Amino acid sequence: MDANLKSPAAGSDRIVIIGGGFAGINLVKKLRNSVYQVVMLDKNNYHTFQPLLYQVATGGLEPDSIAYPLRKIFHGYKNFSFRVAAVSNIDTVLKQVETDVGLISYDHLVIATGSGNNFFNLGGMSRYAMPLKSITEALDLRSLILQNMESALVAPEIEREKYFNIVIVGGGPTGVELAGAITELKKHVLPNDYPEINLERMQIYLIEASERLLAGLTVSASEGAYKTLTGMGVNVMLNTRVQDYDGDLVKYGADKQLKSKTVIWSAGVQGEIVNGLGQEVLKRGNRYDVDAYHRINGYENVFAIGDVALMSTENYPTGHPMVAQVAIQQARNLGQNFLRQRSGKSETAFKYKDLGSMATIGRNKAVADLPGFSTRGRFAWLIWMFIHLMNLVGFRNRVVVFINWLWNYISYDRAIRLVIRPFKRNTH
Amino acid sequence: MDANLKSPAAGSDRIVIIGGGFAGINLVKKLRNSVYQVVMLDKNNYHTFQPLLYQVATGGLEPDSIAYPLRKIFHGYKNFSFRVAAVSNIDTVLKQVETDVGLISYDHLVIATGSGNNFFNLGGMSRYAMPLKSITEALDLRSLILQNMESALVAPEIEREKYFNIVIVGGGPTGVELAGAITELKKHVLPNDYPEINLERMQIYLIEASERLLAGLTVSASEGAYKTLTGMGVNVMLNTRVQDYDGDLVKYGADKQLKSKTVIWSAGVQGEIVNGLGQEVLKRGNRYDVDAYHRINGYENVFAIGDVALMSTENYPTGHPMVAQVAIQQARNLGQNFLRQRSGKSETAFKYKDLGSMATIGRNKAVADLPGFSTRGRFAWLIWMFIHLMNLVGFRNRVVVFINWLWNYISYDRAIRLVIRPFKRNTH
Repeated sequence: MDANLKSPAAGSDRIVIIGGGFAGINLVKKLRNSVYQVVMLDKNNYHTFQPLLYQVATGGLEPDSIAYPLRKIFHGYKNFSFRVAAVSNIDTVLKQVETDVGLISYDHLVIATGSGNNFFNLGGMSRYAMPLKSITEALDLRSLILQNMESALVAPEIEREKYFNIVIVGGGPTGVELAGAITELKKHVLPNDYPEINLERMQIYLIEASERLLAGLTVSASEGAYKTLTGMGVNVMLNTRVQDYDGDLVKYGADKQLKSKTVIWSAGVQGEIVNGLGQEVLKRGNRYDVDAYHRINGYENVFAIGDVALMSTENYPTGHPMVAQVAIQQARNLGQNFLRQRSGKSETAFKYKDLGSMATIGRNKAVADLPGFSTRGRFAWLIWMFIHLMNLVGFRNRVVVFINWLWNYISYDRAIRLVIRPFKRNTH
Repeated sequence: MDANLKSPAAGSDRIVIIGGGFAGINLVKKLRNSVYQVVMLDKNNYHTFQPLLYQVATGGLEPDSIAYPLRKIFHGYKNFSFRVAAVSNIDTVLKQVETDVGLISYDHLVIATGSGNNFFNLGGMSRYAMPLKSITEALDLRSLILQNMESALVAPEIEREKYFNIVIVGGGPTGVELAGAITELKKHVLPNDYPEINLERMQIYLIEASERLLAGLTVSASEGAYKTLTGMGVNVMLNTRVQDYDGDLVKYGADKQLKSKTVIWSAGVQGEIVNGLGQEVLKRGNRYDVDAYHRINGYENVFAIGDVALMSTENYPTGHPMVAQVAIQQARNLGQNFLRQRSGKSETAFKYKDLGSMATIGRNKAVADLPGFSTRGRFAWLIWMFIHLMNLVGFRNRVVVFINWLWNYISYDRAIRLVIRPFKRNTH
């Protein structure tokens, strides 16, 4: 029982946290050396800095510099234990979670599992499109982009087009950032690697269903991103829906189609829920319906924070945006409330403080909506880099990322174009 | 035909090189912008700096910083083409190689495929032991070491021993360097990550069949390595043969056995030969029998260099050592001979200049046999680091490796202890 965990000390409670993302790690930090016994479960032994996954996928950063061992974050925490575990079910009656390393009991349970891909029932997309939510997905995409260049090189002329075309579905930050990064690969890196290929033939498409890119940002930022991307040569299609994809052919709009072996899905995410709670606690986007204190509707001791939680407030009637800042602030608020409970104080309701949004598009190119002002171009780009560097976990990672960025900037290179494990389409 | 390669210019010959290791890349460099058309084939799109694989396996370096895109090495070479291709057969009559991207014809063929593992018909070892010849094998070993720590943590007491024990078979440079690196992990890194585990229980065994470690070095270096490792707490067994391994139990010596889920094979390598030449050209260790000009016995236009070649000379009657320096010098000699042929000059026979051997054992600990003198300790360790840094391919890689070494030295850390893709035993 309890995967060899010690029992909580007398008078102490055990808080089990599922997920080591931004929400999970900030909650543990808040509870450092408190009276609670804190147990974190994650299927990986590392935290992923998701905002930079697209740079791993495009050869600009090593995967290892945006991942950080979870155990290391919490060195010296006396009340903390970690287990690599995949959770299969929650039993709220017995107050235990069922995992592949055994049953683990809890007094308070916090679900911080984040989000996965939502393919909106487009079966072909879920089978053949490349998502970008994890390190392994980023590595698969990096491999595929490079493998397709190699395939284009040796394919008969009539088969080459599908290897050249890259289609990105979804014009949110991930889609915009990827489109920019792949365009820079095409412009600065691939011509030197593939002098035998006419890279004009490599076309990058960004397909967005709504009327603007970066829907979470201001209209001015959206327009800036649109102008920058089209100026770089990206084929941006707004008000356009993809219909289907069979691994070779993307159908979109009314009856249009494109040949492509590389379709990247960045059009939708949904809560990564865990079995065991009823359907009635799920709201739009597969997110848990929580109150202002992060309690899942109808459960006393089960909480959800981050992407997987949907808290309906006056300012955010359909829930907060699924971004790191919300997860971090919710974790801190929930941690604070756990501490207040212990001191007999009342809990404080969560209130989100919007620190702004930004997206980078390329070299000296970014858009940023910050509290009080919006900016574009090199200044936005510098702010973006600074904020991302500061938020990376670990000093070594910051140094290595900084050096890579410096290198990439000076040399126009993306040095890490390695196919370490070739991507095989049938693996997902 | 020819995987979309252009035909060689009139009056020019095509040299096809199989393998992008030390031998292959140095041959291409020697032939830069010569009259030859040079085509390199490799199953990977990158060169691997094998001497540092053990540091990837033990979390000290990113895999991406010891790999380098092959295309990038040869930017600006006007007579060079590269194809990612797995070679299945050589047809010396039609003068073409058969690959997974089609037939590729040659005028001169150079086999520089290096070496793979030789398990000496120990079936259990070949199935269950972990080799360390490639980046993916190093990543698998890194994952397994960490996964076994996690398994030890949740296993019932009677099952824990096999997760703690690490057995390294073979006391050459790889075995010695791994034993040292894993011992430093155990001493400096794992105690902070696993405060719940008594790490005295983690035992590291190094089993060597001959009477000394580092058989390629001087007796004094061997004794130095032995003393250093035993002083660090490694269980070194000399004159000991492993008999079998079933994935849980290693049998060794007359009738001894050890429980272990982590057995690392560094006891033997053999030439990585290609189908199509007769058995009669193979000598001991599966290496091609070549003359003083690297020509495979009985073939006019087929050469072998590096680990896969066995050239019997007065000083090296059973062939040169299978190390990078031999491969590099052979490649330069063969390249020079190709150029001399064109100028109507006679070929020069290969003569190996031994630049020395060294092995690092840990922090400030190494042994080095250099021309004219031998040394041990911190000075040998500094030389080892300097030479390896200088021989890494790529400025960015050198900077990133240097920073990681600095970081590891100052912090006693091995930061990259990530299980990106969990190792599953049935995958090989």
